[in-house]
Amino acid sequence: MKPPFKTVALVGKYKSPEIAEPLLKLAQFLERRKVKVLIDRLTASHLAGNKYPVLPLEELGEKADLAVVIGGDGTMLNIARTFAPYDVALVGVNQGRLGFLTDISVDTMFDTIGDILDGKFMAEARMLLEGEVDRGGEKVFEVLAFNDVIVSKGAKGSMLDLEVRIDGQFIYNQRADGLIVATPTGSTAYALSSGGPIVHPSLSVIALVPVSPHTLSNRPIVISSDCTVEIVVHSAPDPRVHFDSHSHFDLREGDRVVVRRYPHAISLLHPVGHSYYGMLREKLNWNIE
Amino acid sequence: MKPPFKTVALVGKYKSPEIAEPLLKLAQFLERRKVKVLIDRLTASHLAGNKYPVLPLEELGEKADLAVVIGGDGTMLNIARTFAPYDVALVGVNQGRLGFLTDISVDTMFDTIGDILDGKFMAEARMLLEGEVDRGGEKVFEVLAFNDVIVSKGAKGSMLDLEVRIDGQFIYNQRADGLIVATPTGSTAYALSSGGPIVHPSLSVIALVPVSPHTLSNRPIVISSDCTVEIVVHSAPDPRVHFDSHSHFDLREGDRVVVRRYPHAISLLHPVGHSYYGMLREKLNWNIE
Amino acid sequence: MKPPFKTVALVGKYKSPEIAEPLLKLAQFLERRKVKVLIDRLTASHLAGNKYPVLPLEELGEKADLAVVIGGDGTMLNIARTFAPYDVALVGVNQGRLGFLTDISVDTMFDTIGDILDGKFMAEARMLLEGEVDRGGEKVFEVLAFNDVIVSKGAKGSMLDLEVRIDGQFIYNQRADGLIVATPTGSTAYALSSGGPIVHPSLSVIALVPVSPHTLSNRPIVISSDCTVEIVVHSAPDPRVHFDSHSHFDLREGDRVVVRRYPHAISLLHPVGHSYYGMLREKLNWNIE
Amino acid sequence: MKPPFKTVALVGKYKSPEIAEPLLKLAQFLERRKVKVLIDRLTASHLAGNKYPVLPLEELGEKADLAVVIGGDGTMLNIARTFAPYDVALVGVNQGRLGFLTDISVDTMFDTIGDILDGKFMAEARMLLEGEVDRGGEKVFEVLAFNDVIVSKGAKGSMLDLEVRIDGQFIYNQRADGLIVATPTGSTAYALSSGGPIVHPSLSVIALVPVSPHTLSNRPIVISSDCTVEIVVHSAPDPRVHFDSHSHFDLREGDRVVVRRYPHAISLLHPVGHSYYGMLREKLNWNIE
Repeated sequence: MKPPFKTVALVGKYKSPEIAEPLLKLAQFLERRKVKVLIDRLTASHLAGNKYPVLPLEELGEKADLAVVIGGDGTMLNIARTFAPYDVALVGVNQGRLGFLTDISVDTMFDTIGDILDGKFMAEARMLLEGEVDRGGEKVFEVLAFNDVIVSKGAKGSMLDLEVRIDGQFIYNQRADGLIVATPTGSTAYALSSGGPIVHPSLSVIALVPVSPHTLSNRPIVISSDCTVEIVVHSAPDPRVHFDSHSHFDLREGDRVVVRRYPHAISLLHPVGHSYYGMLREKLNWNIE
Repeated sequence: MKPPFKTVALVGKYKSPEIAEPLLKLAQFLERRKVKVLIDRLTASHLAGNKYPVLPLEELGEKADLAVVIGGDGTMLNIARTFAPYDVALVGVNQGRLGFLTDISVDTMFDTIGDILDGKFMAEARMLLEGEVDRGGEKVFEVLAFNDVIVSKGAKGSMLDLEVRIDGQFIYNQRADGLIVATPTGSTAYALSSGGPIVHPSLSVIALVPVSPHTLSNRPIVISSDCTVEIVVHSAPDPRVHFDSHSHFDLREGDRVVVRRYPHAISLLHPVGHSYYGMLREKLNWNIE
Repeated sequence: MKPPFKTVALVGKYKSPEIAEPLLKLAQFLERRKVKVLIDRLTASHLAGNKYPVLPLEELGEKADLAVVIGGDGTMLNIARTFAPYDVALVGVNQGRLGFLTDISVDTMFDTIGDILDGKFMAEARMLLEGEVDRGGEKVFEVLAFNDVIVSKGAKGSMLDLEVRIDGQFIYNQRADGLIVATPTGSTAYALSSGGPIVHPSLSVIALVPVSPHTLSNRPIVISSDCTVEIVVHSAPDPRVHFDSHSHFDLREGDRVVVRRYPHAISLLHPVGHSYYGMLREKLNWNIE
Repeated sequence: MKPPFKTVALVGKYKSPEIAEPLLKLAQFLERRKVKVLIDRLTASHLAGNKYPVLPLEELGEKADLAVVIGGDGTMLNIARTFAPYDVALVGVNQGRLGFLTDISVDTMFDTIGDILDGKFMAEARMLLEGEVDRGGEKVFEVLAFNDVIVSKGAKGSMLDLEVRIDGQFIYNQRADGLIVATPTGSTAYALSSGGPIVHPSLSVIALVPVSPHTLSNRPIVISSDCTVEIVVHSAPDPRVHFDSHSHFDLREGDRVVVRRYPHAISLLHPVGHSYYGMLREKLNWNIE
């Protein structure tokens, strides 16, 4: 992921034909800059007359050293999880509305991406979580999360009974709608709605945020991302674990959800002068009277 | 529900054989007090050698003028919903742990219920909600709630998009895990875990409490219980409405959940000197340093 | 306060010469509508060439049947407290930025106030609180509040130890930065910042909202406005009571702050079609993504 | 602060004659263990017949390599600030009620402190903050804090207008009752009452927790403890800065409060098997139904 970037993957929001035009213009811009352009296969299905090489997403991760994503934060979450094992830097371009992860607008992308090719950018390492479900001593599910792993009561409307352990140590039994294990990136997503703190993305920490806990003093806890968090489902009518609100897995009583930091970080590139706090101001309406 | 109480229904927590002994002793006590005793049919299945008349719950509502419930708050919620249309006063006896609704202990129940038969008690009217689901202009579901009506995202893990209207007036579109419409009784249940206020049970109000709302200024709102609250499901992968965490109904996009105060109130009887605030102190550990 | 309104008092924000022009234009407009115009004495000090009768604020309360206030919510709070004993309806005109209490803009005030003179308006009764400080059995301070009465730790930085009683009944001892007793009007002011619910102004309730309470389960409580709230200062280095952030009084240990609903309500007039919820949407940025 | 500990300072809660007995017994115990015992001067004023050397607190910091404090968390805060510049390990003994910092009971102190002398203990480094006030380019106040630095509105009851900068970068203008800059140690103190997260003491982070902020999306933020936090008082009737609720300083408009991590950490010693989470369970009543 160190510049110079020689191979750039382009990925657009799925099922969004409107990204065709900016994406092809960006491809041409990159070509003029003597960069090899690769296009994600699903994205290419919207690109009539595309002449650039097309590859499935996983292969892009292996081949590209920079990926430009045009879409929203949801698209960025997906791409980040997929590219996490590879050494690909990520740039997020939004389609008009600033995202927490897509801070470059289509209008200014040629300038910004030109600068990035010239080595002018700010790089930021963002951690991911890997979550697994253990059932009777066996791993029955495993997936990455960029925002959060959420053990949740599911659809039946009764609270969960959970046991939480950190590095093998008993923390508490909790009755709640759910428990969010969030990365700093995820701290401004669902965890924030549930009363969690904003956590600066540079920190190597995890936030545990209970959702509607029965015990009112069960407050959010910030711990080291070196910790292994273990959540045992004691009783619940319909328990479930969600990863980035993207994939989920049905749990059973007795299942253990184990969450730890994924060994590889994602490298997000921002324009020089990018401000995390400026983005918060904008997204959280801090600047409005 | 005015004393003298001549016919008393006894109801125990379901599937709880341990209530047999106190319940039969209470029946004998009432018999000695020249009161007619009726036993709930499901409760009677645990009572070996029961000689008192047994009736299904609904018929008890018609025949009795006082019902004594031995169990927890969950049992009280069920009985309250069932007896709401009838003029039956309710007394809640807990099995050892104070409940929000079951404030009399088995140890002191003979004294307290003796006092109640003598006309010494505090009566408290508690409101219920009636909720219905309208689909394409037709009512497809209808049920009572004593605690709350909750429109919820269900099991898929994405937020709901809701529109809320009060007395026909647009309030807001909200993205959240759910929206709780709570009675004062329900204000100390799930709504409290989700950040709602404690509402004194004497008030004719409803609390609207969003669960994990996307917009951080979507705070709990307290409105008159004369209002009709209408919640329209705009989009959600798996929406659902829960009533007292007891019954639920699967919603579809476009469904309208309409909530209003049920015309009949429940009459709860407490010992003279009962204190709502004393119960809060105990249940919420206000008295512990 | 019933129309037709024959005598209208005009009051402007203090020390704000910029209200001179709209206020004089409004005076001329009212004169053309055959209404007697009276001007507040402090306001008149900014009005060069004023020819209308000038009276101190208290006398305006006696003489006028409608008062138009040009300013912000702070000005409205002051006028409401002063006029509370009299039968004067209030209209709030803002100078550009919508207020919770000043919902009419200078741009549209001629139309709106013309309509009000024609009897086309929505009237809303808003309650006030009267607070007093008892020291050793004697009343040492007394004042009205439109938003809130706040017992506060003062400047020393240690928590207060308070005892709270409602209608003579002990509620709890609380350690906190302070305790807010808020009207529905005040529920969207300081109480909201401290975690209190939004309370619809039509309700006859009071919200007790602790500020940074030591015990995390000391949550906001909504009670009837028929209740008398009594706050006894047990220990505090520098206790104080505030009324509407306008006046305050230094407390001593042992002092009792007694709060109850003031017998007279204020009548606020709004344009036909005014929506309380619309105002909340605007003020709380509910409509911003 | 590495064992073997040869010189142990004993400090008791001020103005607390009841610590005389356990403290003298502890001195005798230490003497039998061939350890040199030094007594804090203020503490010694309660010790009739004391024969151990007496020194002012600051000199104890220089001479001792271990200090045992008998008292509560407040005493520990004071001693920690005073001893922070020196290489003294700290042990906290409570007088009956578990503290966040005083986790050893008088009843078990001989065993625990014996173990510590034998090298059996868990050591934990806890960060402190240094805060200074800059006025017109000059440093006018400077002090350490173990829990928190709090810029506060003072006694007048109006909100503060603050500007917050981190490492020179503008974060936001905030209207609030105050802003808490808390260490992990302080995260379970005042910051918790104001809605901040619990932060594990092993983390090198600072929590910024607004108190009753006007803008509801001004949520707690967790940042690196390498950051310099700067708070500029824009306007306030009576601004003030507090350090550990122990010392405070009157601010003026335009003053800058600058907070950064103090270069030396405090070393807290705990018995082997000590659990931070176990202490939280106990203090926050997580274990009570």
